[in-house]
Amino acid sequence: MRNKYFKFASLCFISATLFGCAITEQTPNIETELRATGDMGVIIERATGQVQIIDHTDKTIVSEIDGLGDLSHASIVYSRDQRYAYVFGRDGGLTKIDLLKDKIDKRVIQSGNSIGGAISQDGKLVAVSNYTPGGVKVFNSETLELVATIDSTILTTKPKNKDGSPVRSKVVGLVDAPNNKFVFSLFDSHEIWVADFSGIENGKKMQLTKFSDIGLFPYDALISGDGRYYIAGLFGEDGMALLDLWHIDKGVTRILNDYGKGEQKLPVYKMPHLEGWAIAGDHAFVPAVGQHKVLVISTKTWQQVAEIPAHSQPIFVMAQPDNRQIWVNFAYPDNNTIQVFNTETFELVNTLTPGPAVLHMEFTPRGEQVWMSVRDNNEVQIYDTQTQTLLKTLPSKSPSGIFFTNRAHQIGL
Amino acid sequence: MRNKYFKFASLCFISATLFGCAITEQTPNIETELRATGDMGVIIERATGQVQIIDHTDKTIVSEIDGLGDLSHASIVYSRDQRYAYVFGRDGGLTKIDLLKDKIDKRVIQSGNSIGGAISQDGKLVAVSNYTPGGVKVFNSETLELVATIDSTILTTKPKNKDGSPVRSKVVGLVDAPNNKFVFSLFDSHEIWVADFSGIENGKKMQLTKFSDIGLFPYDALISGDGRYYIAGLFGEDGMALLDLWHIDKGVTRILNDYGKGEQKLPVYKMPHLEGWAIAGDHAFVPAVGQHKVLVISTKTWQQVAEIPAHSQPIFVMAQPDNRQIWVNFAYPDNNTIQVFNTETFELVNTLTPGPAVLHMEFTPRGEQVWMSVRDNNEVQIYDTQTQTLLKTLPSKSPSGIFFTNRAHQIGL
Repeated sequence: MRNKYFKFASLCFISATLFGCAITEQTPNIETELRATGDMGVIIERATGQVQIIDHTDKTIVSEIDGLGDLSHASIVYSRDQRYAYVFGRDGGLTKIDLLKDKIDKRVIQSGNSIGGAISQDGKLVAVSNYTPGGVKVFNSETLELVATIDSTILTTKPKNKDGSPVRSKVVGLVDAPNNKFVFSLFDSHEIWVADFSGIENGKKMQLTKFSDIGLFPYDALISGDGRYYIAGLFGEDGMALLDLWHIDKGVTRILNDYGKGEQKLPVYKMPHLEGWAIAGDHAFVPAVGQHKVLVISTKTWQQVAEIPAHSQPIFVMAQPDNRQIWVNFAYPDNNTIQVFNTETFELVNTLTPGPAVLHMEFTPRGEQVWMSVRDNNEVQIYDTQTQTLLKTLPSKSPSGIFFTNRAHQIGL
Repeated sequence: MRNKYFKFASLCFISATLFGCAITEQTPNIETELRATGDMGVIIERATGQVQIIDHTDKTIVSEIDGLGDLSHASIVYSRDQRYAYVFGRDGGLTKIDLLKDKIDKRVIQSGNSIGGAISQDGKLVAVSNYTPGGVKVFNSETLELVATIDSTILTTKPKNKDGSPVRSKVVGLVDAPNNKFVFSLFDSHEIWVADFSGIENGKKMQLTKFSDIGLFPYDALISGDGRYYIAGLFGEDGMALLDLWHIDKGVTRILNDYGKGEQKLPVYKMPHLEGWAIAGDHAFVPAVGQHKVLVISTKTWQQVAEIPAHSQPIFVMAQPDNRQIWVNFAYPDNNTIQVFNTETFELVNTLTPGPAVLHMEFTPRGEQVWMSVRDNNEVQIYDTQTQTLLKTLPSKSPSGIFFTNRAHQIGL
């Protein structure tokens, strides 16, 4: 559907010089094909610090971009026009990639060790959650200039850093919420904070609301698709912490008291990803901690109503955009397998074995395809969701996260 | 954020001729700025057969395009890359507009009188529902070549057309559904049909499933956001027809038996728009027929559970993307007013009077703004959804429908 690159720029530059064309700041990038980005996405190539820009209509790799630093657990959000991808690297790098020019637009090293980020509802602010130094930094999404620093709570029981600064709590589970809010969890100080940036363009100051004693060591979080419920998983105890953003005055409540109960505590790298929670109809489908089960939770009572036996310990449980099926991947050493379940009957629909280390899945916006990173095969596989048949395989170097641009239009993504 | 148009093409063409550049099919359109379309949209200017392309980040009119014919009740769907808008005109015109080049890419007159359209899940097919001759025509979304004609049921009791052809039922309420299906209603023959185009690329034939006696004169329809429930309004009797696409074998059932009951039958142009149904949480918020009320329906039982008194007869009832509030407009002569209600308490939040003939509303993807066409003021007004304050007014000639490109990624839109 698209024209290939057109090698015309240099000759045109010569002729323009001769004829006196004013090719200045207004010059369009005529090296670049005309493209719309609604069907594009970015794949993290973790081992090489690269990303691939892809097209999910043509099922092709459009380009590869170098120089993104440490991309372990890297994640991505998109500008509201879907032109720019903001890549949050583990080394504190925040990189803005231009999908129309296949290149890095801007890059800053904003901290020593970061874990994820979010973009505000109005698209003007990009926030990054940091381990070291602990806190959240907020940037102008256009310029990447620092707008605000939110220092997390000082851990008074810990010795100071070498430079004499206090040690602060690590920040995790950062998401955007309606009305230009960011919500995040403080791992070491057991808190949830809400930072409200609404109205700052009219002189209003950022407002910070803090909830303490929310439960021991929140390690990850999710927000429901309508931006109402923020749910943090607890590493230090059973259960989860729920904040209803429609009724913030009611504070944080505890849900799913049995979640993880009776199980041996596992290292964090084996804890399931919460952003993988699938909410379909009245049910949330949740990876059980360390058990071979998917738990079915009522979104009315936030209590477990059923459980689905699965192949191994689930990591991501993801619902198709039409909510008809969930797709589940698993922890090592069973991470070569995917299972698909019916969301209504809970029956197993299919078991696939794409290959070693299926790390992530991403559905096309209306859900006809799912893309899977199969890290240790150095490939991305594309499946038809209805038939679960393999449509195409693309080469990719140790792929991990896959992020499509339609996330730009979804609260919390 | 964007560069303005760059007037360079003609000079470059001269120089290219001199220097022997091969400006052929591969030439990029260098008259056009580099842009991403994720924050763009199209406004119908009904009276003049024009559309405006807009940018909802900058809140600006990007361009205006002529020659679209009769745009009464025109609607729009988008290609999956969000580059092209397909405009369905009342005169049977199907026009494909290129948002990157600000011009008509292709245009066909596909019937004598059409009423709306849809795009398939995979983006490859565009379907149009027609009054005259009655039926659905399906086109290749890239070329606008005819792929299939689905003739509707012959009305044997009506005299034949002048050309000797039989009169067929008008088709209304056409939507796309998961797995490359189209669902539509037959007004005169009281049917719902499902056309399944899945697998046609692998040689499978289109499959048609017909439901008869679904209720008298279905006049409009909607599909739930997950593509499961198709609901048709009935002009000839009380109640509505529901088809659960997850259980198509169960057939069409009747819901909301009181819907419209006891009210004088109204002409179709005053019937509420069903595509305006807001579904928030467990509730659908539905415009009452001819009454000054918004009805609250349980999406579990599909029965009414409450009603909200409103300013006048509601036409569109639309939920913000965060489901926190519904925005309601009203029938003539009270169509200068908008009311905003809380979806949880059903309380009135605000009453606005934007001006004469507020015809349509469209929310930005994450819901921070709502755009309103105020037809008889020849303007579009942009409001902050949280504060309900007017942010900006844009000139527009008799604006009606407003359609943003994020619809490309939503089932049924």
